[in-house]
Amino acid sequence: MHIGILTGGGDCPGLNAVIRAVTLALVERCGATVTGIERGFLGLLDGRCRPLEASAVRGLIAEGGTILGTHNRADPFHFFGAGGTDCSGQALDFLGRHNIDALVVIGGDGTMTIAERFARLGVPVVGVPKTIDNDLMLNERSFGFDSAATVVSDALGRLQTTARSHGRVMIVETMGRYAGWIALEGGLAGGADAILMPEQGYQIEQLAAFARQRAQEQGFALLCVAEGAKAVGGEWVIQRQLDDSPDPLRLGGIGHRLTADLEAHLGSQVEVRCTLLGHLQRGGSPTAFDRVLATRFGVAAAGLVMRGQFGRMVALQGDRCVDVGLAEVAGQTRFVPLDHERLQVARALGIFLG
Amino acid sequence: MHIGILTGGGDCPGLNAVIRAVTLALVERCGATVTGIERGFLGLLDGRCRPLEASAVRGLIAEGGTILGTHNRADPFHFFGAGGTDCSGQALDFLGRHNIDALVVIGGDGTMTIAERFARLGVPVVGVPKTIDNDLMLNERSFGFDSAATVVSDALGRLQTTARSHGRVMIVETMGRYAGWIALEGGLAGGADAILMPEQGYQIEQLAAFARQRAQEQGFALLCVAEGAKAVGGEWVIQRQLDDSPDPLRLGGIGHRLTADLEAHLGSQVEVRCTLLGHLQRGGSPTAFDRVLATRFGVAAAGLVMRGQFGRMVALQGDRCVDVGLAEVAGQTRFVPLDHERLQVARALGIFLG
Amino acid sequence: MHIGILTGGGDCPGLNAVIRAVTLALVERCGATVTGIERGFLGLLDGRCRPLEASAVRGLIAEGGTILGTHNRADPFHFFGAGGTDCSGQALDFLGRHNIDALVVIGGDGTMTIAERFARLGVPVVGVPKTIDNDLMLNERSFGFDSAATVVSDALGRLQTTARSHGRVMIVETMGRYAGWIALEGGLAGGADAILMPEQGYQIEQLAAFARQRAQEQGFALLCVAEGAKAVGGEWVIQRQLDDSPDPLRLGGIGHRLTADLEAHLGSQVEVRCTLLGHLQRGGSPTAFDRVLATRFGVAAAGLVMRGQFGRMVALQGDRCVDVGLAEVAGQTRFVPLDHERLQVARALGIFLG
Amino acid sequence: MHIGILTGGGDCPGLNAVIRAVTLALVERCGATVTGIERGFLGLLDGRCRPLEASAVRGLIAEGGTILGTHNRADPFHFFGAGGTDCSGQALDFLGRHNIDALVVIGGDGTMTIAERFARLGVPVVGVPKTIDNDLMLNERSFGFDSAATVVSDALGRLQTTARSHGRVMIVETMGRYAGWIALEGGLAGGADAILMPEQGYQIEQLAAFARQRAQEQGFALLCVAEGAKAVGGEWVIQRQLDDSPDPLRLGGIGHRLTADLEAHLGSQVEVRCTLLGHLQRGGSPTAFDRVLATRFGVAAAGLVMRGQFGRMVALQGDRCVDVGLAEVAGQTRFVPLDHERLQVARALGIFLG
Repeated sequence: MHIGILTGGGDCPGLNAVIRAVTLALVERCGATVTGIERGFLGLLDGRCRPLEASAVRGLIAEGGTILGTHNRADPFHFFGAGGTDCSGQALDFLGRHNIDALVVIGGDGTMTIAERFARLGVPVVGVPKTIDNDLMLNERSFGFDSAATVVSDALGRLQTTARSHGRVMIVETMGRYAGWIALEGGLAGGADAILMPEQGYQIEQLAAFARQRAQEQGFALLCVAEGAKAVGGEWVIQRQLDDSPDPLRLGGIGHRLTADLEAHLGSQVEVRCTLLGHLQRGGSPTAFDRVLATRFGVAAAGLVMRGQFGRMVALQGDRCVDVGLAEVAGQTRFVPLDHERLQVARALGIFLG
Repeated sequence: MHIGILTGGGDCPGLNAVIRAVTLALVERCGATVTGIERGFLGLLDGRCRPLEASAVRGLIAEGGTILGTHNRADPFHFFGAGGTDCSGQALDFLGRHNIDALVVIGGDGTMTIAERFARLGVPVVGVPKTIDNDLMLNERSFGFDSAATVVSDALGRLQTTARSHGRVMIVETMGRYAGWIALEGGLAGGADAILMPEQGYQIEQLAAFARQRAQEQGFALLCVAEGAKAVGGEWVIQRQLDDSPDPLRLGGIGHRLTADLEAHLGSQVEVRCTLLGHLQRGGSPTAFDRVLATRFGVAAAGLVMRGQFGRMVALQGDRCVDVGLAEVAGQTRFVPLDHERLQVARALGIFLG
Repeated sequence: MHIGILTGGGDCPGLNAVIRAVTLALVERCGATVTGIERGFLGLLDGRCRPLEASAVRGLIAEGGTILGTHNRADPFHFFGAGGTDCSGQALDFLGRHNIDALVVIGGDGTMTIAERFARLGVPVVGVPKTIDNDLMLNERSFGFDSAATVVSDALGRLQTTARSHGRVMIVETMGRYAGWIALEGGLAGGADAILMPEQGYQIEQLAAFARQRAQEQGFALLCVAEGAKAVGGEWVIQRQLDDSPDPLRLGGIGHRLTADLEAHLGSQVEVRCTLLGHLQRGGSPTAFDRVLATRFGVAAAGLVMRGQFGRMVALQGDRCVDVGLAEVAGQTRFVPLDHERLQVARALGIFLG
Repeated sequence: MHIGILTGGGDCPGLNAVIRAVTLALVERCGATVTGIERGFLGLLDGRCRPLEASAVRGLIAEGGTILGTHNRADPFHFFGAGGTDCSGQALDFLGRHNIDALVVIGGDGTMTIAERFARLGVPVVGVPKTIDNDLMLNERSFGFDSAATVVSDALGRLQTTARSHGRVMIVETMGRYAGWIALEGGLAGGADAILMPEQGYQIEQLAAFARQRAQEQGFALLCVAEGAKAVGGEWVIQRQLDDSPDPLRLGGIGHRLTADLEAHLGSQVEVRCTLLGHLQRGGSPTAFDRVLATRFGVAAAGLVMRGQFGRMVALQGDRCVDVGLAEVAGQTRFVPLDHERLQVARALGIFLG
């Protein structure tokens, strides 16, 4: 049996742990040959790939990123971009030429959408969900998410000492353009006083009043703000930037807007400062939790391959590894429900949520 | 409403996060008064306690240990020790004298057994499970466990560099006298080549053969061994020490025994070294995961108090916070089932399990 | 003997370790009374202060920030701002009223300038240098600097995994408005391919050519850029912003300018991304090195007080704690000499320096 | 020019950073060829070596251990052991056969002694000091030392939370068989209440009295004890073990002895616990400080090679990289002088030193 494996979309801590687990499980258990396809789906088109052996992957569990490389925009069905050419035939040729019996595809929503199209063309595909933002459908927790929440939590801890020393309001802007999972989890873990998410608009007057009061009582206030958070009634800050720019992070998004707004409301007596965590959230070695989860996903994906269950994606539900149909996942986003237990927890602690 | 809270048994990362969440939830949501009882059940006997206010606990989420102190052996029903006096009347007096309406008790198996006895005497008690070892019944994951597994995983990462440089077999001895959860989770996350647990005996000849082969292929081998692991057919190492000593860790347990055994089998060509992680596994700041879990447990316990549901312990099942009867938990140990998914994952990766 | 102690200017990891060491040394060795003055020189004006006892400070060594609080702009000689009122009389009243025999002042260039003026008015003052940027005169290494360089080095390590996975050029913008010490030390430790400092202008064409080549050879390139770095021949980016804004960090400084410039030169084939570390560099617990250095400074300052050597500032030269005149330090900046050994080291490794 | 490089003795964080710096400096600056000799001096005998290229070493700065491997006991002049055969001729053959113009040797006292013998035989040798213990002569600070002190400091921080929660006396046993540098630096950084070193004997009665008092005042006590510390008047614990065992760490050394002694003196009211850090102190990624220092040493060694200054070892004096004669270093140990500034600092803080 010959299996191809690729990683698509943005990188994420734990990708190498999945590659390692898929490879070890297939090689050790059933003597398969595994080929790593480089730079996401691009490798299916330009033919860049390399053999993966047990000895080469065994030490990978702690390594950040992906040894295979990845590519954000390489869609064989639209190469490049939305109006691009359909090059999927080239990809099928590649699979045929290398006698690849099945493809394990690790990626996010975009990658699963492509994988599903390949599945419909008859390619035996198994998906592994990759989303730092934790917003893939039918999958309750993904590797990389705990690592990102840990970066947020650590940053809040660091900033608390400077906030306290100067009596400041400090804002941390996290990832989460559409869903607020990282801001919520990282904010809870880091002891944030307020958590702002795309799912729940905030009124700046209320936020400013809360921040002023908390700063008086506690000497400082920590705000944890998802990239996609937005003021209610006001304009959709991020949306406008998405139209104008490929990378809103670089233009200064909600964090800087909020800093200016809060300063205007709080006056010169309270200093407000903002920190963007940006790429720090996706780099580096995965946490122990993410290493184990990525390893479980990898072994589960190898199991699907060995049992011939294709067109499926591995997922975590409760604490169980299950599998779901690729078609059920593609093109959707899992938002934080406004009655989610974590939000109830945050409310019980007196955290401002908008 | 006046609520007492205490922490019993060995300390654990996340205890302060529970104390914080219980207090904030009770004070902010229903204006309760919260009193911290010091040094576990001992405080019920000697009357040492102090008021807990929102402002005092809000900054506690990252702090290791317990600000209330704890005590390993203070059982009011047997004070001190198995043949001790029943001083539970004194404890009841304390609760009456301070008009304490309910007691939140954070602790492990021993603590829950005591809590259950108080519940039978009519004390309104709510339990919060505390077990780094993750071996309390009906609770699938406890705070402190992720922190301990992270210490194990980090230690394996550190030791790998020295193992590789010297071509050694290196052993890490973890906590887990009765159940192997920490060795299993930490070993998976740290890329251990072998994981030995109390639940699965090992044959030294097989282990030595495996270690020799792995060291040849990979240049080194990493073994992750729970404190309570045991050789098959051989004597029960730990059990004998338990009889002789109050603290087997200090005498050199399975790790040192295994080092000597492996050296005997491997000969002078392969060096074997052992590291005991000991108390490092229970000290320090909790991981982001544990902070959130402890916070959820704390809020859930406050909810039980507010709804008057006593004699219950908060628990995690799947990813849901539920509650179970104290009587169902007390006096039992949750072992790693030999068909557990994590063990299947380990086997799929070619990890030696005995 | 009654000693006052205050922290001025921006916060910095290690301030609490100094406060602890000064207090322990004065209390334990000569039975002095120590009073902590709050929020920098502001406490001398509004009278906010509190007694510091050995038991209260002993646990402070690992705590970030300053328990006394600090203030960036509270100059008793110009209250507030450059054209402000001279309130130094109030400060002298405070010292007299509390019978304070000597003042230990921990701070940077601005704080030392104020301390020196007080010294000229006859106040027995001892200074302890505080500068994350490591740019105080006559002091070769200050606490906080190693902590900041560690944050930079860790960030470079994290970003390397994502840079490598995506084949990107990644920029890290560090502190260092006038001197490049942090970028240089952190960049060396983090394996940066290029280090840009205020002391050495760069030509964008050369930098772009270097980045392209390094990205081709290595698959990615990491650039470490001090806040105050500037293009040669071009305008002085930061200077202009200093005129316009109280906080250039928040407007997007050199990092974003460089990102745009490099993208223009490198074309669409190479992605460029930027991360601002900002306040992460000054928050959090000090490194072991900084804890020891801050402790040495604190004990040395206590020694100056006990020996009656006032108007002096503690300093590190070589690895020796010495003391220098406050007047020699005030109003100056220690730049990186272009023939400094660290720069020679960077050149020997093929690091691009401009 | 063809340069050989090898690492001897125990591994240490920063070895790879030296290998990287030597290689980059020699390859980039003067187009030299560099060959890595494997497993210390053993590679000179069995001929195992490999070419080192710039691209292969550039990413090594953060990696723990040594990619070349090392060997504790491979002395070509006594192969193996004190009464072994002189195989130095074989080593000279190897150097001649590969046309190696100079040898860079990274190691400790034993390695420098061997290097010095080769120098006397006419081999152009340059030494780089490697000693976690920081006890090589004429070199004030070595890479790996800051990393080890950081492990000790972090461990003390972790153990403090559990010590405080249980009201315990906790002992951390560090490396330092002959010199107490690690215990001193790590103990200062970690806020230890007592620091015991080989250079300064302690009386158990005084230590017990101090620990009892500190535990009463502070609620706990932290003791940082070098492996080679010893009781005054009592037997030389470690020395006896050195006679009996190749590895005293594994038998339970001073830490366990001290635990038992303190328990005997303190009675059942105060619990005493001990943690051995062992190999954790030498594994893992070097700190930022050690990465820079190792890099400086590597570049300085390359400079000696290029200038033809052989028979010399790089060293740090003050903060300057200098070089000293191999003969001045070999066979000696740098102890902590009892009037050393760090000891004076410790005394000023009220730390018990014996």
